[in-house]
Amino acid sequence: MAEEELAKRFGELVRRLRREKGYSQEDFSFRVGLHQTYVSSVERGERNVTIGTADRIARALDTTLASLFGELERRTDEGER
Amino acid sequence: MAEEELAKRFGELVRRLRREKGYSQEDFSFRVGLHQTYVSSVERGERNVTIGTADRIARALDTTLASLFGELERRTDEGER
Repeated sequence: MAEEELAKRFGELVRRLRREKGYSQEDFSFRVGLHQTYVSSVERGERNVTIGTADRIARALDTTLASLFGELERRTDEGER
Repeated sequence: MAEEELAKRFGELVRRLRREKGYSQEDFSFRVGLHQTYVSSVERGERNVTIGTADRIARALDTTLASLFGELERRTDEGER
């Protein structure tokens, strides 16, 4: 998967999980300790975040990196079928 | 997990898996398309790599991000027990 595609899918997944948790982008940004403009650009797939930031995001969504990327990579497989 | 700790564990895991595959650091760097000095610093836990780079590393090790972080987070749990 190209880096741009990974960033796009990561962002889409974060947005979906955040909404499922019922957090506004503002609440979530505060929770994860990142600026809302940054979180917004992550969700739009414009950031190739570091694993440290991805881990903070995963924990703020009460999940793990393994689970997050598991879901992301499953969706990728489905998309490529 | 602090970002420094995550980078350290990620680097240790990459080094171990690379050696299990029988790749020298030079071979592996070529395979993943990164400079050897960069790969060396990743393995020493000095880099908080982006998810795009982590994905390239995972694929060069014939694995996935989900599997890599699954192993990393299992080890973390064990360490914290």
